[in-house]
Formats: sequence, C-alpha cells, structure tokens
Amino acid sequence: MILVPGGVTAPKGFLASGVKALIKKSKRKDLALIYSEVPAVAAGAFTANVFKASPVKVSAKHIAHNAHQAVIVNSGNANCGNGKAGDRDALSMARFAAETLALKKEAVLVASTGIIGRYLPIEKIRKAVPALIGALSEDGGGSFAEAIMTTDTKKKEVAVKVKLGGSVVAIGGACKGVGMIYPDVKAAGHATMLCFITTDAVITKKMLAAALDEAVADSFNMISVDGDMSTNDMCFVLANGMAGNGKIAARNKDYGAFLSALKFVSTELAKKMVRDGEGATKFIEIKVTGAKSAGDARKVARKVSASTLLKCAVFGGDPNWGRVVAAAGAGGVRFDPDKLDIYLGGVKVLSNGTTVKGYDLKRAEALFKKGAIDIKVDLKSGKHEAIAWTCDLSHDYVDINSEYST
Amino acid sequence: MILVPGGVTAPKGFLASGVKALIKKSKRKDLALIYSEVPAVAAGAFTANVFKASPVKVSAKHIAHNAHQAVIVNSGNANCGNGKAGDRDALSMARFAAETLALKKEAVLVASTGIIGRYLPIEKIRKAVPALIGALSEDGGGSFAEAIMTTDTKKKEVAVKVKLGGSVVAIGGACKGVGMIYPDVKAAGHATMLCFITTDAVITKKMLAAALDEAVADSFNMISVDGDMSTNDMCFVLANGMAGNGKIAARNKDYGAFLSALKFVSTELAKKMVRDGEGATKFIEIKVTGAKSAGDARKVARKVSASTLLKCAVFGGDPNWGRVVAAAGAGGVRFDPDKLDIYLGGVKVLSNGTTVKGYDLKRAEALFKKGAIDIKVDLKSGKHEAIAWTCDLSHDYVDINSEYST
Repeated sequence: MILVPGGVTAPKGFLASGVKALIKKSKRKDLALIYSEVPAVAAGAFTANVFKASPVKVSAKHIAHNAHQAVIVNSGNANCGNGKAGDRDALSMARFAAETLALKKEAVLVASTGIIGRYLPIEKIRKAVPALIGALSEDGGGSFAEAIMTTDTKKKEVAVKVKLGGSVVAIGGACKGVGMIYPDVKAAGHATMLCFITTDAVITKKMLAAALDEAVADSFNMISVDGDMSTNDMCFVLANGMAGNGKIAARNKDYGAFLSALKFVSTELAKKMVRDGEGATKFIEIKVTGAKSAGDARKVARKVSASTLLKCAVFGGDPNWGRVVAAAGAGGVRFDPDKLDIYLGGVKVLSNGTTVKGYDLKRAEALFKKGAIDIKVDLKSGKHEAIAWTCDLSHDYVDINSEYST
Repeated sequence: MILVPGGVTAPKGFLASGVKALIKKSKRKDLALIYSEVPAVAAGAFTANVFKASPVKVSAKHIAHNAHQAVIVNSGNANCGNGKAGDRDALSMARFAAETLALKKEAVLVASTGIIGRYLPIEKIRKAVPALIGALSEDGGGSFAEAIMTTDTKKKEVAVKVKLGGSVVAIGGACKGVGMIYPDVKAAGHATMLCFITTDAVITKKMLAAALDEAVADSFNMISVDGDMSTNDMCFVLANGMAGNGKIAARNKDYGAFLSALKFVSTELAKKMVRDGEGATKFIEIKVTGAKSAGDARKVARKVSASTLLKCAVFGGDPNWGRVVAAAGAGGVRFDPDKLDIYLGGVKVLSNGTTVKGYDLKRAEALFKKGAIDIKVDLKSGKHEAIAWTCDLSHDYVDINSEYST
C-alpha cells in the first residue's frame, strides 16, 4: 500500500469540485460535488441521532438504490430542524445535480453541515449548481475537501493505492468535522462524521457495506472532540469498478487487502479531525487493553476520551491521571478495579488499582507538555483492545463555541 | 415547611465541627465531623463508578449496620487508587473518631474528597481528631460545611422544619462538589455528590433508605457540571429520632410529608452545587415534558444538560438552540422528531420538529444573556417529565482544571 495525492479524485473515473454559493457569511467555498464517470455501488453510515437532518433522511432513502454517480454537499447550513421544507430542499439539492448531470435523482447522495435551525438558501444552491458541475475536475479533490469545511482550519484528505491480484486499486477520502464530534457506537446503526470515500475497486454493494461497517467501528466511531453527537453525521463510500480487479464478492484475500486499505484511509481521516479539533492544542491517544470483549474495550476507551476534566488537564500539561481512573470506571463496563493498571506514555502510575510509589512524576509531567499524549489503560481481564482519539479542551474551544451562531 | 438556619446541626441532637489538619496545601479547613448524641439509623447512596475510593468501600460496609452516630470527612485528598493502604487508612479515620467518641467503628461513616492517586496523610488526620472532636458544637454546621469544600467557592447548607402530626421535625444538609459532577443514573445503585443530611425524625432504616432513593433520583442525580462521574460520590442521611414524632414505618401521610421536605433539602443542595459549578457564570434549567416514562424524561434532560456545546453557547450568550435539538436526539431515547417542541424561556423556537419562522430572536438573545436560563424540551409523546440542572462552560473552568494537581 502506498500513499498517493488526490483525495477523493485519486481513484480512476472520479471528478470533484467546490465553489462559492454564498451560503456562508465568510464567502468561503460552501458547495461541493463528487462525480463518477460511470455508475458506482455505494454504502453509507448515518447518525444514530433520533433527530436527523433532512439530507440524512434523503440520503438514507437514496442509498437503498443500486447505482450512484454523484454526491452533493453544502457547508454553512445543516438543513436540520426545517421540517417538510427542509426535506424538500435536500431533495432539490439532489435533483439540481441530477438534472444537469442527466442522472436519476436517486443516483445522487446529499449531505449538509453547519448551523441547525436555519432554512437552507436553496435558490443560492440552485444558481450555483451549473458552476459547480462546470468546475468538475480530475484534480478537484482538494477543492471538494475545502468546500465542505466549517470550523475546520485545514482540509482533510488522504488517498492510497493497493495491489489486488494484478490490479492496482485506489481509495481516496475527504472529511470535515472538528466540533459536535462524538458518534454513538451504542446504536444499532453506526454514526460517523461527514466523510466521503471513493474507490475504483470492483466490489459488490454488499461487501462494500460490510467493509465500511468494519472500518468505521475502529476509526470514526472512536473519536471525540466534545462528546456532542450531531444530527448530520454521514459517511459514504462509492466504488465505481474502474480498476478492473477481480470482483470482490466474498470475505476472501482481496477483501482483506481492500479492508486494510479502507481502514487505513478511515483512521487517517478520523485522526485528522481530532488533530484539527476546535481549539485543540494537543492530540491524545487512549489505548485500552485486557478487556473481556471488543465492545468493553471500546466503551472504556471512549469514556476516557470524553472526559472533560482529563482534556483540561492535558491542556494545562498537568498529569492528573486520577481523572483517567475515574472515567475508566464510569464507562458502564464491569472490571476488577484491583487489577487496573494505568500508564502515561511509558510511566506506570497505577498498578493493580494502587498508586505506584515514587513513579517518575517528572517524566509524566514532561509527557503531558508534549503535543501528542499516550495513555494506556490495562484492565487485565481479557484479550480485547481498542484505541480512541481525542484532543485537549482549551480556551479557544470555549471561544469558538460561545459565539458560533452570531 | 419553613427554612431554618443551622445546616446539619439544625435537627435536635446533632453536633458538628470542622478543623485544619493540614491535608490541603491552602491550609484551609479540611477535616469535618458530624456527631449525633444518640444512635441514629442511616441510609447511604454511593457512586456507581466501578473504581471506588477506599472510603466508599468502608462506608458501604458500615452502612449495613443498624446504628450510626458519626460521620468523619476529609477534603484535599480522595483516598482513591491507594489499594489496601487506602482501605486501611479509610478504616483508620473511622477508628480514630470511634475510639475518642467511645463508639464501635461501624457506627462511624467516612468520606473523602480531593485529588485521586495520592496517599492519605493519615498521621495528620490522627493528630487532628482530638481537636475535631473538641470543636463539636450545636452551631458547628457551618464549620462542617466549610471543611468539606474543595474547589467550592461557597459553603452549601440548608435546613427546614416540617410538622408531622403534633411534632416538629427538622432536616438539615450540607454538601460539596462543583467539578467531576455527573452521577450515573443508569446503574443499579445510585450515585450522588458528597452530601450529608441529618434529621431528628423517628423513622425506620428501611423507610429512610426508600426516602433517600426517591430524593436523590430527582435532585443529585439530575445535576451536571462536566459530565465526569467521580469515584468518591456519596450521600448519607442520619435520623436520630429526637423529634419524638410517631414512627414512620410505612408509606403513609407522614412519610409523604417527610419525603417532600427531604426532596426540598436535596434539590436545594443540588442546585447550590451547580450554581457554584467550577467557573460557572450562569445557571441552566432544562425541563423535559411529554416523555413516555420518567426514565426517558430523565435521560433526555441529562443528555441536554451535559452538552459541552450548549454550555459554551450559554457562556457566550448565544441562543444556539440547535445544540439542544442535537443533544435531545442523542440521549438514546426514541421519540417522534416530527413532534418535538423547544422553548427558550417563553420563546418557542422549534414546533413539531420545525424551526418557527420569525421567532423572537431578540428575546431569545436577551434570555441567554441572563444569569439563569430556562430551556424546555417537549417530546409530546407521554405524560412524564424531569428537570436537570447545569451551568455554563467558561474559560475559568478550563483554568481551574488545567492545573488542579500542581
């Protein structure tokens, strides 16, 4: 597997673009499109939030169809809480793209991100669609990644190439999301950020959905910025088959190689979101080992990653690891507290539930002053493990979110 | 029911004190005692955290006994994560008090609060116990309330008197806790803050436990400062029977009156913790109505109250109510999003899941600039309701928690 440039336009046959539709007050790019030259199979993951934005409802319907060729996305407005008018607007977005591209409207997926509770300026979008389609380009991945940003400070994209048999398959992705980030793993479905993945692999819709399921569980569903689950989270993967590899239709060796590459892309994108988390100054990785089940490991890792107190301690460079202990015990997972070990980087601070006497506080303090912090929680009760990622909680986070809607 | 002064020493036969044992670097009071002149029945509620502090383990054992006469509490050190040494130290605290007061050690309950992962300076406590007992006084409620504080800026106490038949019964309480505040209501047990309630009522241990259960569900278990559940949360109520009322041994009229008063005391104490929440500049009340069950109402109210994004918006005076919608839908409770109504104060902003066109934004903005903010979430799916309380998230919260252990 090798890293390649190009983001969502790295795989064969995918074009993309991003333009200004003046939805955002900032007058930055706010309308984006991915287009596949040939019909693709697609899989999607949607927020588990009971209150779903209109584009989530429309895309969840469209994804049930068998052929998809475009994804249209706006930033600056979530089109959420707008009732039937919102549903109509989300469908109109798909229709505008479909009409100009001569596709069925069901072949177009739609996503929105931005403020909740404001009506979508649909006329602005209608007027901008011709320019959006005119701008489609094989080099448009970066422009797409830019146009989906909200409070993101950097565009987020990654692409890889991997050999499957005699063929080279590419997978590319772009995502946005640095606040209201905490997908709910407990739900029957799965929840993700706004994330778009393209591939030229030949794969059945069923296996593509299976691969997406596996990939999101260990990537997007393991990140947290603030513990707030969005109404708009979505993740799509489109596979247009232009790589010409032998069709992946079962869990065989090629599926395994494809899944590894998809997991790599998903994890890189997930980490990029956390690194760019609103106000973030530090990146935190929490590894839980020795859990009785994968689910237990994920729950504990997620709970620690969502600790407001830990995030403040990391911001201040204070190795207050008692907050790790408290959060680990609050995750609703039964474990033996008298076996619990905690490590800050390589420093063991808690052993069998007991503070290690004379542990290297200076080294722990030095670790907490770094830009990237590793915390390990060993439950010593089983063989399962999980990794969660989060960022610190800074003054800037408070500032960004205390005046977002004004 | 009338409000009276005195806190935990308002009921007959209760003495209290608070002294300096030099556990805290700040050299403020850090050791506290409640003593009843006669044996009392007691009920307790303990944190649902899997990782429990040593005093929680000791008190959970002691509470199973039938007669209690003292509660000893230290602040400045949580005695958590200290393994068997911690358990021994917690028991020693009870023993020191028991020996001087000529009680069985099981008659003494023990609690600690402060930093996790540091060994308790048990010698300092041993040396301070005689002075602590010497300072016991009928007017000691305030001194007790002061000595249990950590990052609290104000002592928190309340007391009431209520007529039961021909007798006057008093209930008094003190509590501390302004950070790491988010009791877990999902657990089989119940979780609370560090809270101490005394009463001179004549009541059986069984009915006292039932009353405490009911009272904490709507008070301590409905508050949040930061969504972090502690390892040390505890709530005790001691009833010494000195009011001479007819014994409450069943769910009769007197039980109802006693429960009302206990709920009042608990709710007042719970709100005091939120008002003094770390860095708090504003108080937020979230009322959920129209839920299918009391549990559903509580879950939604709690989830909204724990929204970091909402708390930042309130800090900035920005009526960004989309965050209420997102959090309401993320609480794991099924409801019909197309029926959802949201009110900010008296301003209806969402009606049947749809943004109200032309709602009074100026009034909503004015509301969010006030010191106390009311938010109502009407699910319109049933008859149950719940109220949760929280505070805003400010720069000061980040400051307080970024250098706590140093």
